Amino acid sequence: MNIYDAIKKRHSIRKYKPDPVPEDKLNRIMEAVRLAPSGKNGQPWRFILVRDAATKTALVPACKGQGFIAQADLVIVACANEGESYQNQGGYMKSWPLDIAIALDHLMLAAAAEGLGACWIGAFIEPEIKKILSIPDDLRVVGLTPLGWPDEDPKPKPRKPLNEIMFFEHL
Amino acid sequence: MNIYDAIKKRHSIRKYKPDPVPEDKLNRIMEAVRLAPSGKNGQPWRFILVRDAATKTALVPACKGQGFIAQADLVIVACANEGESYQNQGGYMKSWPLDIAIALDHLMLAAAAEGLGACWIGAFIEPEIKKILSIPDDLRVVGLTPLGWPDEDPKPKPRKPLNEIMFFEHL
Repeated sequence: MNIYDAIKKRHSIRKYKPDPVPEDKLNRIMEAVRLAPSGKNGQPWRFILVRDAATKTALVPACKGQGFIAQADLVIVACANEGESYQNQGGYMKSWPLDIAIALDHLMLAAAAEGLGACWIGAFIEPEIKKILSIPDDLRVVGLTPLGWPDEDPKPKPRKPLNEIMFFEHL
Repeated sequence: MNIYDAIKKRHSIRKYKPDPVPEDKLNRIMEAVRLAPSGKNGQPWRFILVRDAATKTALVPACKGQGFIAQADLVIVACANEGESYQNQGGYMKSWPLDIAIALDHLMLAAAAEGLGACWIGAFIEPEIKKILSIPDDLRVVGLTPLGWPDEDPKPKPRKPLNEIMFFEHL
């Protein structure tokens, strides 16, 4: 799929059919993730792909009751190793939040191109996710997404007009 | 361009021809940025597009001497308003670093699809950038990129194999 079509087609999907994600689609999506750029090419990421029904169900309360995540074939949990990331982004932060966001963005766009649905989950309780999946102390959980066959076709959300976000030479 | 081709074709470009970025290409790229998802759809972003030669040159020392940024037709400075972002990402952070990374990722992929070059600049001194562009206190500078016609075709950087970054059910 054309990149602009994938960007337009990508919506947050909150209703899923239970059908499995075919292996060839998953492979292409994860290859898109693998090729994502990151600060100093640190690739400070680990992705846990949860297909087990009991584990998916256990993740729901840790995602503040967002039950639709367990409908999808997969829940993907994106983790970052702070120490592997660029330590001086902008002179004030480590790059891992940016790195993981880029990789997950590749995932979302590839999913849209494959006709699959995904949804950035930002509302979650990190210690509960870590407990359920036995994620070690040196990793942060940065985001989650279900990945599966969409059972809805939501309308695009509004966006600010370009003249509120783009400025030539100065603000 | 197919999204997977854009992902494969995107490389950090550190050498540019001075030719201008055509308006239709810039419009498509910025529309891709505008459509990026963000936490609670906050869209906490402002993009400053610098074309003025003196300003581009002034930005070089603030980017630790990365002189190639001033070769490109444009330098794009991505800023975030913390207050407009989702305040409780994962229960421990604000979403603006993720939001800006997603928007800039859209920019990078669209640039690749248009045959243009870009390069994530993470090594910069935020107070100096803010001073040069008179960016107000309530905005953070999260990243920069040149945008222009590539004058090199760099080899892909190595990536970790999938089995080091992708795990089923648990790490």
